[in-house]
Amino acid sequence: MTYGELDQLAINTIRILAVDATSAANSGHPGAPMGMAPFSHVLFNKFMKFNPKNPSWANRDRFVLSNGHGCMLQYALLHLFGYDLTIDDLKTFRKLGSKTPGHPESTDTPGVEVTTGPLGQGFSNAVGLAIAQAHTAAVFNKPGYDLVDNYTYLYFGDGCAMEGISSEAASTAGHLRLGNLIAIYDDNHISIDGDTNCAFTEDVLKRFEAYGWHTLHVKDGDHDLEGIEKAIAEAKTVTDKPSVIKLTTTIGFGSKLEGTGGVHGNPLKADDAKNVKVKFGFDPEKSFDVPSRVYEAYGETASKGAAAEQEWKQLFAKYKGEYPKEAEDFSRRLDGRLPEGWEKHLPTYKSTDAAVASRKLSETVLTKLYPIIPELIGGSADLTGSNLTRAKEAIDFQPPSTKLGDYAGRYIRYGVREHAMAGIMNGLAAYGTIIPYGGTFLNFVSYAAGSVRLSALSHVRCIHVATHDSIGLGEDGPTHQPIETLAHFRALPNCMVWRPADGNEVSAAYYVALTSKQTPSIIALSRQNLPQLENSTIERAIKGGYVAVEAENADITLISTGSEVGICVDAVKYLKDNHNLVARVVSLPCWEVFDTQDREYRLSVIPDGIPVLSVEVMSTLGWEKYSHEQFGLNRFGASGPYKQVYEKFEFTPAGISKRAVATVGFWKEVKPIRSPINKAFIQLI
Amino acid sequence: MTYGELDQLAINTIRILAVDATSAANSGHPGAPMGMAPFSHVLFNKFMKFNPKNPSWANRDRFVLSNGHGCMLQYALLHLFGYDLTIDDLKTFRKLGSKTPGHPESTDTPGVEVTTGPLGQGFSNAVGLAIAQAHTAAVFNKPGYDLVDNYTYLYFGDGCAMEGISSEAASTAGHLRLGNLIAIYDDNHISIDGDTNCAFTEDVLKRFEAYGWHTLHVKDGDHDLEGIEKAIAEAKTVTDKPSVIKLTTTIGFGSKLEGTGGVHGNPLKADDAKNVKVKFGFDPEKSFDVPSRVYEAYGETASKGAAAEQEWKQLFAKYKGEYPKEAEDFSRRLDGRLPEGWEKHLPTYKSTDAAVASRKLSETVLTKLYPIIPELIGGSADLTGSNLTRAKEAIDFQPPSTKLGDYAGRYIRYGVREHAMAGIMNGLAAYGTIIPYGGTFLNFVSYAAGSVRLSALSHVRCIHVATHDSIGLGEDGPTHQPIETLAHFRALPNCMVWRPADGNEVSAAYYVALTSKQTPSIIALSRQNLPQLENSTIERAIKGGYVAVEAENADITLISTGSEVGICVDAVKYLKDNHNLVARVVSLPCWEVFDTQDREYRLSVIPDGIPVLSVEVMSTLGWEKYSHEQFGLNRFGASGPYKQVYEKFEFTPAGISKRAVATVGFWKEVKPIRSPINKAFIQLI
Ligand SMILES: [Ca+2]
Ligand SMILES: [Ca+2]
Repeated sequence: MTYGELDQLAINTIRILAVDATSAANSGHPGAPMGMAPFSHVLFNKFMKFNPKNPSWANRDRFVLSNGHGCMLQYALLHLFGYDLTIDDLKTFRKLGSKTPGHPESTDTPGVEVTTGPLGQGFSNAVGLAIAQAHTAAVFNKPGYDLVDNYTYLYFGDGCAMEGISSEAASTAGHLRLGNLIAIYDDNHISIDGDTNCAFTEDVLKRFEAYGWHTLHVKDGDHDLEGIEKAIAEAKTVTDKPSVIKLTTTIGFGSKLEGTGGVHGNPLKADDAKNVKVKFGFDPEKSFDVPSRVYEAYGETASKGAAAEQEWKQLFAKYKGEYPKEAEDFSRRLDGRLPEGWEKHLPTYKSTDAAVASRKLSETVLTKLYPIIPELIGGSADLTGSNLTRAKEAIDFQPPSTKLGDYAGRYIRYGVREHAMAGIMNGLAAYGTIIPYGGTFLNFVSYAAGSVRLSALSHVRCIHVATHDSIGLGEDGPTHQPIETLAHFRALPNCMVWRPADGNEVSAAYYVALTSKQTPSIIALSRQNLPQLENSTIERAIKGGYVAVEAENADITLISTGSEVGICVDAVKYLKDNHNLVARVVSLPCWEVFDTQDREYRLSVIPDGIPVLSVEVMSTLGWEKYSHEQFGLNRFGASGPYKQVYEKFEFTPAGISKRAVATVGFWKEVKPIRSPINKAFIQLI
Repeated sequence: MTYGELDQLAINTIRILAVDATSAANSGHPGAPMGMAPFSHVLFNKFMKFNPKNPSWANRDRFVLSNGHGCMLQYALLHLFGYDLTIDDLKTFRKLGSKTPGHPESTDTPGVEVTTGPLGQGFSNAVGLAIAQAHTAAVFNKPGYDLVDNYTYLYFGDGCAMEGISSEAASTAGHLRLGNLIAIYDDNHISIDGDTNCAFTEDVLKRFEAYGWHTLHVKDGDHDLEGIEKAIAEAKTVTDKPSVIKLTTTIGFGSKLEGTGGVHGNPLKADDAKNVKVKFGFDPEKSFDVPSRVYEAYGETASKGAAAEQEWKQLFAKYKGEYPKEAEDFSRRLDGRLPEGWEKHLPTYKSTDAAVASRKLSETVLTKLYPIIPELIGGSADLTGSNLTRAKEAIDFQPPSTKLGDYAGRYIRYGVREHAMAGIMNGLAAYGTIIPYGGTFLNFVSYAAGSVRLSALSHVRCIHVATHDSIGLGEDGPTHQPIETLAHFRALPNCMVWRPADGNEVSAAYYVALTSKQTPSIIALSRQNLPQLENSTIERAIKGGYVAVEAENADITLISTGSEVGICVDAVKYLKDNHNLVARVVSLPCWEVFDTQDREYRLSVIPDGIPVLSVEVMSTLGWEKYSHEQFGLNRFGASGPYKQVYEKFEFTPAGISKRAVATVGFWKEVKPIRSPINKAFIQLI
């Protein structure tokens, strides 16, 4: 295949759109788009399978720009191919309310698969997308029906390569032998601090070889279109390993400052922008000026993509005739519908049932749902036996050659890689046929904070099974005992933090997590046994908060979560017996869900007239929102048997009662005592 | 060198102490100590330089157990060599209040250099310790005076090797050519999920070669003491690269379950414990039974270490004679004393001074202090030009061969490696001669959460320069705009979160950060310009909170931080002009410091009688602690020019005033209106 003048024109059009958009915004990153334009031209026109008129076609190739600051590259491509992104959208790059924000957001722009920008995230998302493809193919493809055979193409730069999360994800991809993943490393020798020689001198390809990847090098990524095409073609032939193509490019190609840090994160100077246009044969006085021939050529590629989807639809129709059950399941998953009646399989408990650790209760839920919800794909960051995340009959997701499982397997061994696990889960969820959950200790969800944040921002349904959720883990000590973790994620918008107190609450947490298609969840679970509460039901708990112990003419409300709710229940008796005080208890397993209930309900749970004391064995930060006084742990924990640790910090009926007495006394003189539910104004949403 | 029966006895003693302590605790990890005992015996007796009677000898070799769950190995060694850790301390392993917690904590146990357990952390700490050695040697060593020539020895396991932070740190160490760092990879093929084949099949040594490390392999780490000795000796001869020794061992060596996951995280069964003792020639009925010959042998090594320190002291005395200035500086740093009068160099501002971005004000502080505090070692995770963390005259810390700097340089190019940067800073601080600071965007301090947590837990003075601290960063958009970050770290115990509003507050933040020897700080700084406040002084701001605008008979207190304080000041006029309401303004740059002020002062800042409205352009979580009503951003931000983004979310004098009016109206009927400073009881500390 030879390339001609039209190819060069198209490549330069992409470059100039990046120059114009960053100039118009007076902000942004022109350098990477200018360097990566040649590769992108070849990849999108010769290899990638996509239909701009239907960005959600199930078998489309996935494209991930992990170096998301180069998003004008992606926006330019999406525009030229005819996605719903106009030239005016490019003109409003980085402007308020535009479809072209400063970094790619899957919720804002058609054709953007995952939200990237925070470096390394896209890398792990791409691994997730590739796992999802391999799994979906293994489950649904049939002889003669390659229903799912898409590739995932991933761009990453030096910044992504330096981030730990991409090391974790790359090692995982190598282990899993994901032949459907092709990564392109933009080797432009520049990061924000200047030449990568100042901090990044490792041999990147050798590192990827060590992970088990197939490696290639295109030495002249600026000009060698044939070499690029050959490399992609070769990568596609290697089906038992992921491939990485090191693409040596000149950042800001065409600019007076090409090859320097000067073109990385700032628009070109006005005279340089003109210089680039002249150099590329464009009118220096015009902006956003796309040659019609380029639109036509890219339109042809788009038409081929539309035709490919048509063909695929016919294949699917035939498949539906032959495999109606599978076809229905495939469609159901893509629609995000759960199997009819699945919720009837959630376990329920009576207060006479035995005390059980909530991590164990979670295992029961997962085991019950395993045969019912086939799109539920689990895993753990090397803590399977502690997180209890694996249904007994589960098969591991493994390359068949390992003899440890196969690609139809539904349990992923993430290794000790919390951050990549969460990033991979985001990719799994973005693929469309999978609901991922993954386990680690609550304390180590913090390692994954970068990815959890992007789950929330990009509205994907991931479930974090976060066990060993407090000082209740005991002997492992303060290095493993979360204090700040719940406050952290409660402050994160669009992320549900659950801390269930018993079996029904665990079922409720999963019910809401699974039915919230746009929101990730963190379910904090105890290591230690917890009693089943008298008043708990799934129906009550799915409101996020409810009255666990009601009392007439109460003096105080105790409000609590998880393992401390049972202790509060015991404190009710202690308070009556020792202080003649009447207490009621509220269980508040999920703040975010409780906040969405109507005011009347919330006030019935946390009523006016009596003070509220919160009880949770970690940071009190934020509990003022629901209580007048707070009992918590604003310090690190201690290593020892958990009951002794609880005693030490006075999380006992006596310790709670002491503070309840102080609370009642302290609030006597205030009239009226208003429930903290009452606020002067409503926050912006 | 040949090894005999006494060596084997010592090795087995270590193993059996690990068995006994985990059995007594009924909890813990015997496997790694049993596997790593032979190597440790050789390393500590033949190579390591340490004096158990003075664990803080400046030139001691540093030992870091990154696989901290194997801490009984370290505790056993410390005990046998005569550190202040008795056999009774071993008997109380993992018990409440003991000196032997479930994971090694530098604050609890003499001889433990850094707090480890969360996997990968120790790896990055060791890189920090090695950088610190190289730097300290380059600054203080003189011809004939190798004052500082210690090595750092690092153990890490499969779990650490999988964590992204260790990849980041290893790549950094390779780039920096840290020949003083010798890492031992415990290749025992087991992690919690079982055989590492299930998730971790990369070629670890090849990966380290790619990073630029010297690699070695000891194939029989269970028996080959000569091979171990040879490998360590060889590693020491390679002075221009860090070395990694892959040590193939049998986890739980001697147990019936040796080589399996069964000995990783659980004590041996009683009969197996006996079996091990019999196998090793110990009395199966006795526990914690150390042969006196082992004490004697280890005591001899300890004596040699004491003698070595004596010799070093003489060297230092001579050095002091010849280089009195350097000697005094060296001692001063080790004592943690800052140079006399340093604080006079902190810049101060008048309200008539120009508006300046607080990241720029931070640069001014760092530039002023650069020549005054030589132990201040800076850096950035590839955002130098954005974080403004580099004093203009700074020299980079680089291997001289790069010609980009030298080891005496004081500016570290961390690359895009936030997590490793924070972990390395913990190691730098732990070395004793350095105060580290490092920059990234506030949003990406979250990537480093695991290490920041350990700074706080282990009481080290690290300063995180966290710029671009809100939606005020503008165009980069929601992927880069922190919402939950301040709440997260405010909830973290022993971590100061500063968000200064102007120049004097920036100086105050640095003043407190630098003088708080036991506490890390995060200083959140704006991208955009901020006016200098009327009432701000360093003296006021170091109290963590003060009255920025006072008013008699005020109707409301507005309480705020950073960039919003200036807007609140403007809102005072707006409220007067448009609503005839009198407002006062409180600036609260650091909650943690404000909380340590006496009650009277805090009540003078946030007085009884009028309602308080908080204003901060991120999550309101926790602000209820200081205010009756909260104005914040409990959603993600937006990409656009920052002034428009502020307008969109109504963080303007008009937007604040609207909410202030609602607040005053809403609280009219409550009597008395109590300051939120008043609490019914005091939290446990
Ligand atoms: Ca949340
Ligand atoms: Ca804090």
